[in-house]
Amino acid sequence: MDNSPPQHTNRQYEEDLRGLRSGLLKMGGVVERQIADAIESLVERNTGRARETIERDAEVNRMDTEMDERCIRLLALHQPAASDLRFITTGLKITTDLERIGDNAVNICERAIELNEEPQLKPYIDIPRMAEIAQSMVKDSLDALMREDPALAREVIERDDEVDQLNYQIYRELLSYMAEDPQTIPRATRILFVSKYLERIADHATNIAEMIVYMVKGSTIRHMEKKKP
Amino acid sequence: MDNSPPQHTNRQYEEDLRGLRSGLLKMGGVVERQIADAIESLVERNTGRARETIERDAEVNRMDTEMDERCIRLLALHQPAASDLRFITTGLKITTDLERIGDNAVNICERAIELNEEPQLKPYIDIPRMAEIAQSMVKDSLDALMREDPALAREVIERDDEVDQLNYQIYRELLSYMAEDPQTIPRATRILFVSKYLERIADHATNIAEMIVYMVKGSTIRHMEKKKP
Repeated sequence: MDNSPPQHTNRQYEEDLRGLRSGLLKMGGVVERQIADAIESLVERNTGRARETIERDAEVNRMDTEMDERCIRLLALHQPAASDLRFITTGLKITTDLERIGDNAVNICERAIELNEEPQLKPYIDIPRMAEIAQSMVKDSLDALMREDPALAREVIERDDEVDQLNYQIYRELLSYMAEDPQTIPRATRILFVSKYLERIADHATNIAEMIVYMVKGSTIRHMEKKKP
Repeated sequence: MDNSPPQHTNRQYEEDLRGLRSGLLKMGGVVERQIADAIESLVERNTGRARETIERDAEVNRMDTEMDERCIRLLALHQPAASDLRFITTGLKITTDLERIGDNAVNICERAIELNEEPQLKPYIDIPRMAEIAQSMVKDSLDALMREDPALAREVIERDDEVDQLNYQIYRELLSYMAEDPQTIPRATRILFVSKYLERIADHATNIAEMIVYMVKGSTIRHMEKKKP
């Protein structure tokens, strides 16, 4: 009883859908780099790098709008069927997460600029470790989307615990710094915020992963048919 | 040249769309209450209230999934035209923000439970003020959506500065508490986190408002026509 339009022979549609996929991957790549650069500007005390990274956020915002427009255009011009519809609506939702990850990278840079103006409190060990995990979570959540791979998505969700643990560990350590020497309080709270931003980045990756599990499961729409007027 | 299907005579479609509108408003109402209850549990040192609020988050999560399903069903079963399409895709995006606001209310409750176990550091004055503004931003962003009112949405966006200012003020005040008496550090950092959660709630409301401005403007899709197979 499938009397839906022959979408898969529609060249424009295929092209738009491919454009959405590659655009999301590209946006994910830029966002991953923003995380790496933000942490580098902190660890290497490179304020110039921090400022460049903040400026590059405009590109993330532009891509966010562009991806949303692509999704809406696909919905408006074509009548995507169940599995494509799930992909497009998931795309529409995860651009927000990617854009917010970019915002958190900017927040890290802002704290890095402030921290770079004062003597270094301590060598950064857990923060880069946390950033590395968060970055891998962003990468793998996008891969899970492209491959429609719920197992990989679930793995991303599990990795979030590790980030939460590191965040708590950093919190305890900074508390003891502050208690021992109140002079460290302004710097310690800034590092505390950096840790929180990374935790939030991991949360966004987790949210993307959860949406992919939901998308692949997609029982509510899998059995739906387009109603003809 | 409008040869789109006669959607507005389709009773099921109208009913689904109405269901989405009232569902989003209801979800917004629950989320507003979660913010109010979270702050009450902190200010009145009511741990029982905090626990109830944490439990009620399951309702927010359920509504989030339900609203998403409603949006996808509307897209799958009908071919919504430009203005409805914009509304539905905006709905799909803002459920994520509403759900995250609920998560932040839970985070406030968690910190409240911890803070309630220790002597009160100071009377809460700026935190309830901040919560009140954040709550009004959530309410007005939803109203702006329902009325498709970009002026109200812009007002919400402006109010975010006030929240950021209060957040900074609280940060400075807590820094001085910590510096004067290191014993206050664990409590002060927890209050600092509460302030951050409220700031994030206001950010989510701002994001909702920005999407409404974009939705109403919607130049990219306003001039689109459905392509016929």
